[in-house]
Amino acid sequence: MSYAGGRHFLQIPGPTNVPDSVLRAMAAPTIDHRGPEFGELGRSVLAGLKPVFGTTRPVVIYPASGTGAWEAALVNTLSPGDRVLCFETGHFATLWQEMAGKLGLSVDFVPGDWRHGVDPAQVADRLGQDTAHEIKAVCVVHNETSTGVTSRIAEIRAAIDAADHPALLLVDTISSLGSIDYRHDEWGVDVTVAGSQKGLMLPPGLSFNAISDKALAASEKAKLPRSFWDWRPMLAAAERGYFPYTPATNLLYGLRESLRLLEEEGLSTVFARHIRHAEATRAAVAGWGLEVLCADEREHSAALTAVLVPEGHDADKIRALILDRFDMSLGAGLGKLTGRIFRIGHLGSFNDLSLAGTLSGVQMGLALSGVPIRPDGINAALDRLSVS
Amino acid sequence: MSYAGGRHFLQIPGPTNVPDSVLRAMAAPTIDHRGPEFGELGRSVLAGLKPVFGTTRPVVIYPASGTGAWEAALVNTLSPGDRVLCFETGHFATLWQEMAGKLGLSVDFVPGDWRHGVDPAQVADRLGQDTAHEIKAVCVVHNETSTGVTSRIAEIRAAIDAADHPALLLVDTISSLGSIDYRHDEWGVDVTVAGSQKGLMLPPGLSFNAISDKALAASEKAKLPRSFWDWRPMLAAAERGYFPYTPATNLLYGLRESLRLLEEEGLSTVFARHIRHAEATRAAVAGWGLEVLCADEREHSAALTAVLVPEGHDADKIRALILDRFDMSLGAGLGKLTGRIFRIGHLGSFNDLSLAGTLSGVQMGLALSGVPIRPDGINAALDRLSVS
Amino acid sequence: MSYAGGRHFLQIPGPTNVPDSVLRAMAAPTIDHRGPEFGELGRSVLAGLKPVFGTTRPVVIYPASGTGAWEAALVNTLSPGDRVLCFETGHFATLWQEMAGKLGLSVDFVPGDWRHGVDPAQVADRLGQDTAHEIKAVCVVHNETSTGVTSRIAEIRAAIDAADHPALLLVDTISSLGSIDYRHDEWGVDVTVAGSQKGLMLPPGLSFNAISDKALAASEKAKLPRSFWDWRPMLAAAERGYFPYTPATNLLYGLRESLRLLEEEGLSTVFARHIRHAEATRAAVAGWGLEVLCADEREHSAALTAVLVPEGHDADKIRALILDRFDMSLGAGLGKLTGRIFRIGHLGSFNDLSLAGTLSGVQMGLALSGVPIRPDGINAALDRLSVS
Amino acid sequence: MSYAGGRHFLQIPGPTNVPDSVLRAMAAPTIDHRGPEFGELGRSVLAGLKPVFGTTRPVVIYPASGTGAWEAALVNTLSPGDRVLCFETGHFATLWQEMAGKLGLSVDFVPGDWRHGVDPAQVADRLGQDTAHEIKAVCVVHNETSTGVTSRIAEIRAAIDAADHPALLLVDTISSLGSIDYRHDEWGVDVTVAGSQKGLMLPPGLSFNAISDKALAASEKAKLPRSFWDWRPMLAAAERGYFPYTPATNLLYGLRESLRLLEEEGLSTVFARHIRHAEATRAAVAGWGLEVLCADEREHSAALTAVLVPEGHDADKIRALILDRFDMSLGAGLGKLTGRIFRIGHLGSFNDLSLAGTLSGVQMGLALSGVPIRPDGINAALDRLSVS
Repeated sequence: MSYAGGRHFLQIPGPTNVPDSVLRAMAAPTIDHRGPEFGELGRSVLAGLKPVFGTTRPVVIYPASGTGAWEAALVNTLSPGDRVLCFETGHFATLWQEMAGKLGLSVDFVPGDWRHGVDPAQVADRLGQDTAHEIKAVCVVHNETSTGVTSRIAEIRAAIDAADHPALLLVDTISSLGSIDYRHDEWGVDVTVAGSQKGLMLPPGLSFNAISDKALAASEKAKLPRSFWDWRPMLAAAERGYFPYTPATNLLYGLRESLRLLEEEGLSTVFARHIRHAEATRAAVAGWGLEVLCADEREHSAALTAVLVPEGHDADKIRALILDRFDMSLGAGLGKLTGRIFRIGHLGSFNDLSLAGTLSGVQMGLALSGVPIRPDGINAALDRLSVS
Repeated sequence: MSYAGGRHFLQIPGPTNVPDSVLRAMAAPTIDHRGPEFGELGRSVLAGLKPVFGTTRPVVIYPASGTGAWEAALVNTLSPGDRVLCFETGHFATLWQEMAGKLGLSVDFVPGDWRHGVDPAQVADRLGQDTAHEIKAVCVVHNETSTGVTSRIAEIRAAIDAADHPALLLVDTISSLGSIDYRHDEWGVDVTVAGSQKGLMLPPGLSFNAISDKALAASEKAKLPRSFWDWRPMLAAAERGYFPYTPATNLLYGLRESLRLLEEEGLSTVFARHIRHAEATRAAVAGWGLEVLCADEREHSAALTAVLVPEGHDADKIRALILDRFDMSLGAGLGKLTGRIFRIGHLGSFNDLSLAGTLSGVQMGLALSGVPIRPDGINAALDRLSVS
Repeated sequence: MSYAGGRHFLQIPGPTNVPDSVLRAMAAPTIDHRGPEFGELGRSVLAGLKPVFGTTRPVVIYPASGTGAWEAALVNTLSPGDRVLCFETGHFATLWQEMAGKLGLSVDFVPGDWRHGVDPAQVADRLGQDTAHEIKAVCVVHNETSTGVTSRIAEIRAAIDAADHPALLLVDTISSLGSIDYRHDEWGVDVTVAGSQKGLMLPPGLSFNAISDKALAASEKAKLPRSFWDWRPMLAAAERGYFPYTPATNLLYGLRESLRLLEEEGLSTVFARHIRHAEATRAAVAGWGLEVLCADEREHSAALTAVLVPEGHDADKIRALILDRFDMSLGAGLGKLTGRIFRIGHLGSFNDLSLAGTLSGVQMGLALSGVPIRPDGINAALDRLSVS
Repeated sequence: MSYAGGRHFLQIPGPTNVPDSVLRAMAAPTIDHRGPEFGELGRSVLAGLKPVFGTTRPVVIYPASGTGAWEAALVNTLSPGDRVLCFETGHFATLWQEMAGKLGLSVDFVPGDWRHGVDPAQVADRLGQDTAHEIKAVCVVHNETSTGVTSRIAEIRAAIDAADHPALLLVDTISSLGSIDYRHDEWGVDVTVAGSQKGLMLPPGLSFNAISDKALAASEKAKLPRSFWDWRPMLAAAERGYFPYTPATNLLYGLRESLRLLEEEGLSTVFARHIRHAEATRAAVAGWGLEVLCADEREHSAALTAVLVPEGHDADKIRALILDRFDMSLGAGLGKLTGRIFRIGHLGSFNDLSLAGTLSGVQMGLALSGVPIRPDGINAALDRLSVS
């Protein structure tokens, strides 16, 4: 890519724009992961993560991508042949249940239209039918990165409780943690899966499991083979701030800084900022006369917005034009949505004027691509942003 | 300043947004300024600067701000009591002639309204009257950073030539070099003064003199006291890539990288980009129903745009609101323009979407400040940006 | 840790001292891992790794620590209950076979004294006895980081061949790759396991499998459950420079730079440098009148040197004194060697004067700890370093 | 320079090794030098510098090299033709008085042998003879970077006082500030000149004047032309943390961090560390059987050590061999000492093991150059370093 002035607009829904101070923090010299200075670092980030997950229980940090944390959630709690209940909310929910199958689990995959989140009534229904309690875990993607639809975890928890079913609740928050309000303890989640490269404003390379007591108890009996992902040595070493094998030290430096930034801004302010930006983005989409993929008002993602492209237009060609002409990356339609949508990431380290630049680029790119739009998107967004 | 998401929009007309790669280049370990590795660095930047100035003659690099390069231009070429011809094009032209006075020169300061550049006819007229050739130098600010007005150097050169006057032509390009087409040799400039923190996309701390043979000859006879600014030891050491005293090594690392970026984009492309952005900015100003300070179509700056605020509004309050609310810095009105204008910098490392974000912030800030504007600015700018 | 002047000496045998240019490379903004710029990066590092492994076959990059690459080597090639032949050369060989057990493999663990590498005769013997070819893989740690003993892979290969046994050869090069001559193809290794944080001069967080055609064929039939570690989607995506899930982009930036440095210095020069430094270190140990742990002249590690502490002295107390007094981290004795040795890392980005500083610190630390040494170590090392 | 493993040893007496955290601090994005965030930065560094100078009076920061701060000290306090008393303690003292001459001052330059500091008795004598008080300033280099000799400022002050002479005392601390105990107020210095690139552990590009009330009063009457260096607008702007022209913002970020490091280590600890390192270095020189240039026990520099090379050997060839072979830069003999000495810098961010590496490189380099030395230098140094 040759230089053409200015900064790239990285508006995919993750990896997100990493704050400079996080990048600089990562450039500090690597230290001895068995020495006292590391212990301070380890204790600091392990403690600092807890409020972000809304938990007082342990959080495990893997030197791995979010996909690995999915695997960790499964292999630590389940045994070969266990039934798990999954919901087709989009591409990533589909991948997660595929992983469960590869690992030797038996998957109930409830079909979906990729425009809705998990229906709590369906959870209740499925679990209610499972009177033998063969279903050992319910796997839910909190914020479907492929669709911009956010499932309502508290209501799903209530549905499980109403069914009086002992299944574990495993939740993927890879694209919601640090961007959308989330409460591991309060919502009774058993394993929360997360990654570094979205709301935590870090490069990819770290992932997380927040673990309930119930999940911890399950891990004592789980029989899927595990070594790298095994919580037990991780939890044992974490007590003093260390790791059983070499951690990704420089990413942990970045994590310490990003946790500091989240604390400085305040989590509730961070969440409100994401909601404002999502509302402004939807205002722009409406202003253009286009349609947002998410079909339920209660489930709009605060982290990204997927926009349906009118019939006869190829979303990927629009994205390519925008990349070429305006140096902005947008998210592609994945799986069955390929070419039909593009996704605007507005999560992580982001502000009003960057959003305005982003939406300006989309507006120009749509028009230049021949998509019939009204030019009222950007002004509609600015109107929303002008209100606190 | 507490963190609030995203990056600051630094839209003052310099210092400008420094590319990441330049910042990282500056973070390399300092080296021995007398060793062979430094010699390579020195030769590389001294050679690489020449095309940016449009010269084949030597360029001197000072470890100092642009103000220092003004002083260098004067003390190397002039003697106590020499007359110099200056033009009141704005705040920086005013400061430069004040400096000339402090250094013991006799200044003819031609008054101006801060909305026009130097009038070539006035140059011709003043020099024509100076039949005794007492005027030793004509000092012109190429791009007045305080007003957004660009003087026409080629026409001024022609005026000097038409008057057949031997005065040196000293030109301040602090906010134009690397942003606006400039030709030291072709335009017969004798000393070009420049700084690092604008079109060269560096932090402040380096400044430059490009020197014609005529200026070099003048320096042999000039009698103003000089030591730090003296060209002679600089030029002697530069032959092998060194400096007579300790240079600002890490800023030179940055300069090497920024010269690489300018070459990669291509100077003519860089200039065209600045013109597009200036045109889009003026389209926005017109869309809002406001007035640009620059009063001559031929003199609009491609680097910044100064916007007049309607009577009864305080530009500094608008700027403060925009900084507080949208995390964007705009330039203040300086000197006699205090409170009456704000300046939008669109120079250096900058692109279409950052400009769109910038103008969005201005539009929202004006409206929130109660300035009566039409909301048509941003769309007018996007229309301009949608044309190549 | 409060600042006390100068840089920390990180002389554990990994993570190693990361070159500044690698740290700065890692601080570049994260990019879209599905975009064209990433494809260039991916292709560059995937190709650039091959000569470092001595292979023309594919290398897989995991966003994970070296431990993960151990697991990947096992789960991609083996099935539950498969027998694997392991050798107790030290702490890491012990951990690897423990992992094999946890993953459901049946381990033959040949005991060792932690002062020798794998004995090729024992390999021949064990495989010769296995006429039923029940042993599916031989697992060898090339350079035992816990002992400073390097096993002779080419001889082990010859022993396997002499036994005419079809077992796969899996080799851990975590602390040798990029420091000690290694030849995946020539030596007929089936899976080479490596990590980023040693000879590759990167922070931890990336790991690697180099894969022979035979291993690839085995992976088609292997039945251990796998998803995150599965080579197949990795290899498929790698053809165009991409990854099936989010890669650790910023560590890949660092990898591109470290591969450039290795190529600039030249691998054979790198290996010779490590040999010189190891020889100088052993000269110092002999000069002090102490003993190196490695008991076979043919097996001295070029990457680290483990030093036996005389009876009655606690190596960990010596290390603590050296850390406190001289700001240098040395490696601890692990497992059964706890307190009995300390390990000097001299691998990665390292040079003569840093080694001299390191050995000076050890000499002073030993003396200050009351270990009876002769003060002839440092001069003996300098004598060795003075010869090219 | 092609990469050859490890870090360069930058052991010239400045620029010194810049701590990583300072380099990273400098890589933060440039900000508006007129905005509120800058004001915080400015106030912080302007206040933080005072204890380093040992003053409660103002310190001025120039975006320029140390040479500029020399010029500032002269032009702010003196008038054309004023007599100044200078002492030939070495190369830099010689350059400073040359500058004084170029600026139109009349210099009394007391000859010296470059092996001693300023003799307080000579100061007393010269001033005593000047009954007309024609001498307006005494210029002293505190630590002669070219010789490794430190003049005794307190005794010089006493000599001036004993002569009851009103001359200003101007002191160059470019290579002592932050390394060697210095007390602007207590010692009655009128202008202290300093630079960023030595004990302050920064890259070059900033310089300083600490100013007594008497100097400030003198500046009101001084008539040398001045503009860039003029204290008055600097002091006026500094009251709120700003500068009259664009400051070198990113170097100020570095300064904030280096002041933090100095405070964290504690100035008295910093000074003691430098003394230890200087003593260890002299022990090494004695161990080799060589001679230190400084001829007075009371005047050994704690910042650098100049070593005399035996007749028949060329110090520059030794330096070239050491650079080529061991990647270490040492300081050259300057002026009349060219080829006769080399200088070992042991100032700034430096520690025991880096010193041991440095002295090891010198020992090997001397031997490889055929200089007849005893190999006892490094052990003598380690003996000294082993004592707290």
